[in-house]
Amino acid sequence: MAPKIVSIIGLENFPLINIGDDLAKIIVETAAKNNVQIDNGDIIVVSQKIVSKAEGRVVKVDQINISEEAVRVAEEVQRDPKLIELVLRETSRIIKVSPETLIVEDKRGLICINAGVDKSNVPRDSYSLLPENPDESARKIRERITELTGKRVSVIIADTFSRPFRRGQVEFAIGIAGIKPFKDYRGRRDLYDNLLKVKNVAIVDEIACAAELVMGQAKEGIPVVIIKNLERAEASEKSSIEELIISNQEDLFRETL
Amino acid sequence: MAPKIVSIIGLENFPLINIGDDLAKIIVETAAKNNVQIDNGDIIVVSQKIVSKAEGRVVKVDQINISEEAVRVAEEVQRDPKLIELVLRETSRIIKVSPETLIVEDKRGLICINAGVDKSNVPRDSYSLLPENPDESARKIRERITELTGKRVSVIIADTFSRPFRRGQVEFAIGIAGIKPFKDYRGRRDLYDNLLKVKNVAIVDEIACAAELVMGQAKEGIPVVIIKNLERAEASEKSSIEELIISNQEDLFRETL
Repeated sequence: MAPKIVSIIGLENFPLINIGDDLAKIIVETAAKNNVQIDNGDIIVVSQKIVSKAEGRVVKVDQINISEEAVRVAEEVQRDPKLIELVLRETSRIIKVSPETLIVEDKRGLICINAGVDKSNVPRDSYSLLPENPDESARKIRERITELTGKRVSVIIADTFSRPFRRGQVEFAIGIAGIKPFKDYRGRRDLYDNLLKVKNVAIVDEIACAAELVMGQAKEGIPVVIIKNLERAEASEKSSIEELIISNQEDLFRETL
Repeated sequence: MAPKIVSIIGLENFPLINIGDDLAKIIVETAAKNNVQIDNGDIIVVSQKIVSKAEGRVVKVDQINISEEAVRVAEEVQRDPKLIELVLRETSRIIKVSPETLIVEDKRGLICINAGVDKSNVPRDSYSLLPENPDESARKIRERITELTGKRVSVIIADTFSRPFRRGQVEFAIGIAGIKPFKDYRGRRDLYDNLLKVKNVAIVDEIACAAELVMGQAKEGIPVVIIKNLERAEASEKSSIEELIISNQEDLFRETL
């Protein structure tokens, strides 16, 4: 009997990325150097950080002009006004300001600390911002990979976020191309013929988590992970990360924190 | 150059589990039938459902006596009073009651809908409850696997939960044995020698998500997944799922919903 085996493959020795780099080309070349073939149906998970770097979404600290609002919020949060200035530029709604904590709804609809602005794995004099439109970033990488290899893959751009109710961070999908964000079991039957009414798994978030298991967060230099044989993922030409974003009204957990 | 490859192996044709079954023995036997060797360092992810079934944590609907409180809450939630009775028995604190939604802090400290009580993949006349003490369940499975195979593995018991701020469900670790729940990067340096101050990844939740990618939720019959070559996971003899549970005071997201 042959078991179902999914492989999570971290590409070693990925080069440092600079503004304007052709990320898809570097992914294809680095896969080849790793002796990893890119096949139809592969899911390619790309860390937000290298997408932001390739797209020039890295800002030097000495080029940031601080607004009055940023000065005021920075004082409340007790953080660098330049960081806060960048966060506010990325924010559509401030959700919580308190010492050390600034939680916002960002321009993309993500609820996160500091709108995803951070300093890890970028030069020391800089902050990185999330890609302007991560779905679009994913779509471009996907199309270029098809152009270079002739293979139809899916692309997920992933970032690390904290969560309510739980210590520590995990990985989330922030942009997708070529893959349905959910594996929907509603209306299907279980082993005992019970009808499943609720189960709708956010499979792209689970894939992002699986990829982080080999990516790491420090000096690993593995910002791209290829996932093979994941039969449960469904291809889709028009899916968007927006399908994952829930309104406050619909969120079952509203008013629970 | 050889890439880092983690394998997620779903064991096929896992038998239906009954009360009193020796789950570890069945895992070892099913792995053998799948031609999967159990090795030192493997991480074995077990779905909550089969642990509950083996431990007799499945309750027949006609054996449930409904309390007055359950009648009252059931009316507010507009759900079956027998379900609500079971939920209340598993609950330490009710967090939100509204039509269709009952969110509680369960006896184990988990914040979840219906205290994890549900009807999927159990006989149609029954509800399943979470294991009394999932860490203890994981520890017993782990020790028995070592007894049967001579190998030192880690065990994670996993269940599917909804999350705030995000549509769909993903998998969470609810009990662990032999593995540190976090991969802590705090104090380490990134590619640019920046000091990482915050990153503390809830690796057992990510592993649970990776396992769900092959487990599925319906008729798949794959309640056990073996993860191989995950070098980033750290062994630990005394870790507990309680390390993942955050107090309301510490939770950065408090008052944000």
